[in-house]
Amino acid sequence: MTASPSLEEKLDLGRSFDLGAHVFQPDEIKAFASRYDPQPFHLDEEAAKNSLFGRLCASGWHTVGMWMRHNVLSWPATMHPDIEFGPARGIRDLKWLKPAYAGEAVSFTRTTLSCRALPKRPGGWHLVDLRAEALNAAGEPIMTFTAEVMVREKP
Amino acid sequence: MTASPSLEEKLDLGRSFDLGAHVFQPDEIKAFASRYDPQPFHLDEEAAKNSLFGRLCASGWHTVGMWMRHNVLSWPATMHPDIEFGPARGIRDLKWLKPAYAGEAVSFTRTTLSCRALPKRPGGWHLVDLRAEALNAAGEPIMTFTAEVMVREKP
Repeated sequence: MTASPSLEEKLDLGRSFDLGAHVFQPDEIKAFASRYDPQPFHLDEEAAKNSLFGRLCASGWHTVGMWMRHNVLSWPATMHPDIEFGPARGIRDLKWLKPAYAGEAVSFTRTTLSCRALPKRPGGWHLVDLRAEALNAAGEPIMTFTAEVMVREKP
Repeated sequence: MTASPSLEEKLDLGRSFDLGAHVFQPDEIKAFASRYDPQPFHLDEEAAKNSLFGRLCASGWHTVGMWMRHNVLSWPATMHPDIEFGPARGIRDLKWLKPAYAGEAVSFTRTTLSCRALPKRPGGWHLVDLRAEALNAAGEPIMTFTAEVMVREKP
């Protein structure tokens, strides 16, 4: 008889998963920015040209949002079916290293770094550190952060 | 003759500005989540009831996005007209302390904590630390972070 895998094993600690890619289109960049980050350089090609960015690029929050979308939608393919996700507590060290320019394909990865029990909270909840990365077509990181998220084995 | 104010004075270091408030409506919570955070507890009242949240609440990224919207739209009223904002480099210590529940009024504040020159970068750019807060109707912080953002005096 084989021992059933531990929570740590089910979380695949240290393994990096490819979550898919997204091309940021100008219309989508402007639609996100008009609602959540209405700075001229995310709304207008001409204003972007005259900014430090040099041309139209996505709001950094838009890049984060697309990472999160790809993260959640990839769970069935990249996460053990016994794992249940709860609320996130916070984010450390979010860095926007390069812009996500219009028309650029950005790929997303997730690595579960560590897991610790939350003994004071009933229900078997643990706290994991997830490392998030967004990479440009050259494979260079353009956005990184570490998320603290509650997880448990489904009851 | 009066000396013209310094960049630090124009930035009102240490002063907390009220950026306005927003009521998160169920339809808007679900629309944001379906695109950027499609977890069941942000998409469906029944799933929210059976989660740690207990009832429908906004994605933490949605709360952040509404802070950013209020921040940018309030610049004319809360920022010296000589100040120009450039790209943000990153975010430290983003904490989601409490959920932003559907129907709840959330208010937003911004405090510029510090400012330092970036002497290697041409154009007079500086890096400021901005403290962001979202507060519930009881005045309790529900979301906080510190942003590192480039600013300068308009040329």
